[in-house]
Amino acid sequence: MHQGDKYRIGIVGATGYVGMELVRLLGRHPGFRITALTSVSYEGRPFSEIYPAFTGVMDQTLRTADPDFLASACDLVITALPHGVSSEIVPRLLDRGLRVLDHSGDFRFRDLATYENAYRLRHPRPELLAEAVYGLPELHREAIRTARLVANPGCYPTSAILAIAPLLTDGLIDADRLVVDSLSGVSGAGRQSAVAYSFCEAAESSRPYGVVGHRHTAEMEQEISALAGRPLELVFTPHLVPMKRGMLTTLYAPFAAATDTVTAEELYERFNSYYKYETFVRVLPPGQLPDSARVTASNFIDIGVAVDQRMRMVKVFSALDNLGKGACSQAIQALNLMTGYPETAGIDQIGIPV
Amino acid sequence: MHQGDKYRIGIVGATGYVGMELVRLLGRHPGFRITALTSVSYEGRPFSEIYPAFTGVMDQTLRTADPDFLASACDLVITALPHGVSSEIVPRLLDRGLRVLDHSGDFRFRDLATYENAYRLRHPRPELLAEAVYGLPELHREAIRTARLVANPGCYPTSAILAIAPLLTDGLIDADRLVVDSLSGVSGAGRQSAVAYSFCEAAESSRPYGVVGHRHTAEMEQEISALAGRPLELVFTPHLVPMKRGMLTTLYAPFAAATDTVTAEELYERFNSYYKYETFVRVLPPGQLPDSARVTASNFIDIGVAVDQRMRMVKVFSALDNLGKGACSQAIQALNLMTGYPETAGIDQIGIPV
Amino acid sequence: MHQGDKYRIGIVGATGYVGMELVRLLGRHPGFRITALTSVSYEGRPFSEIYPAFTGVMDQTLRTADPDFLASACDLVITALPHGVSSEIVPRLLDRGLRVLDHSGDFRFRDLATYENAYRLRHPRPELLAEAVYGLPELHREAIRTARLVANPGCYPTSAILAIAPLLTDGLIDADRLVVDSLSGVSGAGRQSAVAYSFCEAAESSRPYGVVGHRHTAEMEQEISALAGRPLELVFTPHLVPMKRGMLTTLYAPFAAATDTVTAEELYERFNSYYKYETFVRVLPPGQLPDSARVTASNFIDIGVAVDQRMRMVKVFSALDNLGKGACSQAIQALNLMTGYPETAGIDQIGIPV
Amino acid sequence: MHQGDKYRIGIVGATGYVGMELVRLLGRHPGFRITALTSVSYEGRPFSEIYPAFTGVMDQTLRTADPDFLASACDLVITALPHGVSSEIVPRLLDRGLRVLDHSGDFRFRDLATYENAYRLRHPRPELLAEAVYGLPELHREAIRTARLVANPGCYPTSAILAIAPLLTDGLIDADRLVVDSLSGVSGAGRQSAVAYSFCEAAESSRPYGVVGHRHTAEMEQEISALAGRPLELVFTPHLVPMKRGMLTTLYAPFAAATDTVTAEELYERFNSYYKYETFVRVLPPGQLPDSARVTASNFIDIGVAVDQRMRMVKVFSALDNLGKGACSQAIQALNLMTGYPETAGIDQIGIPV
Repeated sequence: MHQGDKYRIGIVGATGYVGMELVRLLGRHPGFRITALTSVSYEGRPFSEIYPAFTGVMDQTLRTADPDFLASACDLVITALPHGVSSEIVPRLLDRGLRVLDHSGDFRFRDLATYENAYRLRHPRPELLAEAVYGLPELHREAIRTARLVANPGCYPTSAILAIAPLLTDGLIDADRLVVDSLSGVSGAGRQSAVAYSFCEAAESSRPYGVVGHRHTAEMEQEISALAGRPLELVFTPHLVPMKRGMLTTLYAPFAAATDTVTAEELYERFNSYYKYETFVRVLPPGQLPDSARVTASNFIDIGVAVDQRMRMVKVFSALDNLGKGACSQAIQALNLMTGYPETAGIDQIGIPV
Repeated sequence: MHQGDKYRIGIVGATGYVGMELVRLLGRHPGFRITALTSVSYEGRPFSEIYPAFTGVMDQTLRTADPDFLASACDLVITALPHGVSSEIVPRLLDRGLRVLDHSGDFRFRDLATYENAYRLRHPRPELLAEAVYGLPELHREAIRTARLVANPGCYPTSAILAIAPLLTDGLIDADRLVVDSLSGVSGAGRQSAVAYSFCEAAESSRPYGVVGHRHTAEMEQEISALAGRPLELVFTPHLVPMKRGMLTTLYAPFAAATDTVTAEELYERFNSYYKYETFVRVLPPGQLPDSARVTASNFIDIGVAVDQRMRMVKVFSALDNLGKGACSQAIQALNLMTGYPETAGIDQIGIPV
Repeated sequence: MHQGDKYRIGIVGATGYVGMELVRLLGRHPGFRITALTSVSYEGRPFSEIYPAFTGVMDQTLRTADPDFLASACDLVITALPHGVSSEIVPRLLDRGLRVLDHSGDFRFRDLATYENAYRLRHPRPELLAEAVYGLPELHREAIRTARLVANPGCYPTSAILAIAPLLTDGLIDADRLVVDSLSGVSGAGRQSAVAYSFCEAAESSRPYGVVGHRHTAEMEQEISALAGRPLELVFTPHLVPMKRGMLTTLYAPFAAATDTVTAEELYERFNSYYKYETFVRVLPPGQLPDSARVTASNFIDIGVAVDQRMRMVKVFSALDNLGKGACSQAIQALNLMTGYPETAGIDQIGIPV
Repeated sequence: MHQGDKYRIGIVGATGYVGMELVRLLGRHPGFRITALTSVSYEGRPFSEIYPAFTGVMDQTLRTADPDFLASACDLVITALPHGVSSEIVPRLLDRGLRVLDHSGDFRFRDLATYENAYRLRHPRPELLAEAVYGLPELHREAIRTARLVANPGCYPTSAILAIAPLLTDGLIDADRLVVDSLSGVSGAGRQSAVAYSFCEAAESSRPYGVVGHRHTAEMEQEISALAGRPLELVFTPHLVPMKRGMLTTLYAPFAAATDTVTAEELYERFNSYYKYETFVRVLPPGQLPDSARVTASNFIDIGVAVDQRMRMVKVFSALDNLGKGACSQAIQALNLMTGYPETAGIDQIGIPV
């Protein structure tokens, strides 16, 4: 369909950072044309008034998220809304025949109770949980291609799941004692006006938050349990550090009791082999470690491995851009799969290291 | 001695960041008078030429670290030198009757093999290891008072040991499976001219380093083993994050097998009780978590606790200034003990949160 | 009065950054005891709840700014309120016999029309303008000593006036063509929750604002006109740059037509002589230029001079901390004068350069 | 030539920040293929070893800058070398038939004495100065198309010249009294290992440098003199502020004596009209002011205008990315002209505002 033309795409909730980054990336994507931008707060104003960086480049007027309008104007819709809001609007878009990629947590869970426990919300359309596909291409590529509804992964889960996955294929590690420790740039909190995210109070500040029961924990557990074929739980601690963008995750995976030992070289081979067909996962050779600054504004996730043989502990480190592979360019990677474009279309930027 | 007067103090290696911060703090201490500043690189130049912030305040000329001169000019000497250098000069100062506080790793270890393994060096005066006191006042207050040689703790060990200590008093946690994950500001690397520490390459960069076998691991293990009364080992991972100053440590301590459960309130009581006489250790009530920005340029270490009951895991978080409680103001805390000044003299600054 | 005791001082509007910094500095001042902290927004809560850095150090409960209470609890009051609010409360404090140091613009102007034009407000008590003393010690030391009401200068005016003053003593420069170009750290905007001051949107951002008619222009003009003995006007442009604290001002002062030439050395001598008895004004020798990082958290203002002889232009550069000499420590300098303490009491901190 | 194919391009001096950014941009340009990367310091090593962000994307081996090799491997060469080095190698490349775009100051000047005075160097091939084209497309578009040697403008001159140019067309301003005040991100200093550019000493630091006789002054003067048709001189002051990238220039242009007045609206119209066919120059409507963060990693220069009618002063503000329009993407804009590609090819990225 749309031979010789571009897919018409709408972004619902276009004025948060996720929306902004999607506009930035899709505006130069060879296969999509943005035909609708919506915003509750800024309806009626040009997008470039909210983000003057887009002056002359994206001056479309922000509209209300009317499903009928969206159905007439778009082939696909991306929703970048808070959880609890997505679950209300997404079904109405699907009902009108649209395919949807959703950025919230509302459709990431296959199990209703897990969702309702993690988000403290009743889900209005639980039957969609079975249909929605978790949009991590490295794990669910084929399902994404044909999905009507894709739930884009969270930034922390992306960084953790891809660091854990290659370890679950055999009994190397004790998968019941995983610890995930993550650092996030401030944009991960969204377009925030709270004093805690002000320059004055975020610069020079490293701080943990949500240290017990962070919602992303359940999301990590769902995916690694599916990979392992049995229920797994893990410990997760997010931290805020003074970066605009970027995420660095450190995974602690103890050797299984039966494990003799493993070298960093062997681990590297394991990861390298696991991701050998993945363009956006870069496994670093032993001795090299990821750095969030190397993947800024790219879709790459860099993974490094180390082994503390004395302590019988595997350490895996991953770095991504929380607005890149952690959100927006990953969403476009899924959209490329959904529409048959090359998976790298529009998201093959190199990180900006300086 | 020195009734009605100030102790004369010398700083050997005064132009690194530790030296600078010592000058800044001691310059306003009621009980010390800086009578010697030495530097290999900048000998003969005024201190304020290297650090123009001190113009008009500390213009003393930097000298060579001649032991005879130091013995004549000073009552006490602080050495802020690289390891391997300290071990050469400190004995010569002691031999001349000076009391010394050393910032390097050279005298932090009671066991020679541990030192030589961690630092890959032969120690020229191993007999001093038995005499030197590990300068963490919260653990070794009485020994510090009368010590001739105090080894100032590393920043990471300070942040970790004080987070662990209250957990070791009974069988609450499995002390053989501790994981220490730390974030450090860039000044922790010293006055560095390497590109990796340049503004352009450190801003927006979070990165692990020294992820296996970092020297500070052995230092942590020595102290917690002494507390526990048996050899303990732990996993440690340092990270660099884009702050000038500050350190945030996250400790993962699994429940012991026999532990039923523990609440955050109980943990708080435990920590609060453990540190109730400590001015500089602030235990935060449940629900509050430390933030490195709150202790900037102070001698405080803030500690917060959390319990992940589902995962049977205690989490302890500590925040300090790597140049404050992690180095220089902690050194002055020890000097106060050594000289009989009030322990808070000259280091009772409130953190600069903004 | 208060022999052997400290002055009791109250801070009205204690939870903004100016209030916080005053608490931080006064908390360790030898001559003042904070006996009242007020806040409209946080009344009834402990100060340390708003600023956890002060936990255990300043836990006083925030109260309402009741004049009778303040009169009973305090000897002096500092008001750190928005303009238009100060002018309402300050007279009520004065009426109760309190001496007041005010941080707003409400009492900085001797001329009512100038105030009302700059601030677009009617002044409720214009007769106080004649009495209030502009609290710049370098210009109004004697008047401050005995003042009942001191109006603390703005940060930009402090940085500009002290850079201009030594040039006005003779016909060296064309004082009718002065240009003041200033850079401010983000804390200058106060404790802001606007997105424009968020870490994500302030980092990597340099931007002008208020480029025509900024209120501080009138304040600069008042003071330099008084010095020159005739009305002077100037051009002023403030910019926001990504620092927490700090201000850097560049003054462009063209040679007067009659001026033959002047060297940087001569300028240095002029400035050095002008400020030779000023502890907090440091004039840098030719070739050295100020750096905002060198005066962080201090009361110093560093001034450097240069001459572009080809263009017949004097350039003067000044650096201060907008919360230090630009606001709070300057206020304490004035309070020291008002109370007879040594002018440096409690504010002799060295800048924190790293 | 090269029908159906891409131009082969070489980068001499590929491991500085300019080289890195060129690799980043050219690597995704539709019309160029990088066939040679050279480096003196890192010869023999893969580019991605120096910049790991490019792992898997640009792993070419760095070579020595042998002119014969470059002539055989490339159609065009970009030189990103220090001044004084460029002037040695560029002629040898031209002699072998290559077209060259040079980033240094060595070929920016039409007048030999101006160059030798500004750079304190003898020029080895002064006859090339007459031939070289100053690579600012907005002023020299046609000459660039056919040039054999293009001298890429400096970042400060780009920001200043484009802010001044529309003011020179009539007698509105007094062009003999222009003041240019600029702020630059730290990457403008290049890939620096000096302590002054370290994170610890550049963060929180705003500082002037090169305040008299900065080389870029002569470059600005050359171009505005050519536009005005008579020799003009100006005052220029650069400052370093704590950003990775970005430049903000404030121009002060006094009204000419004969000028009655002008409004911001009229100025806006003037600028808008002057740049109406320029894709990369965005003139902001009155009331809006540029922000360096809005053009990060783009080729845009945003220009805003204001009028201080009281002081009879025009203020013009421009923002660009010092590695974008200030260096690398501007170079590609010129290369597009040289090769007949659309002027926007490969450099139509939107700024990254967050």
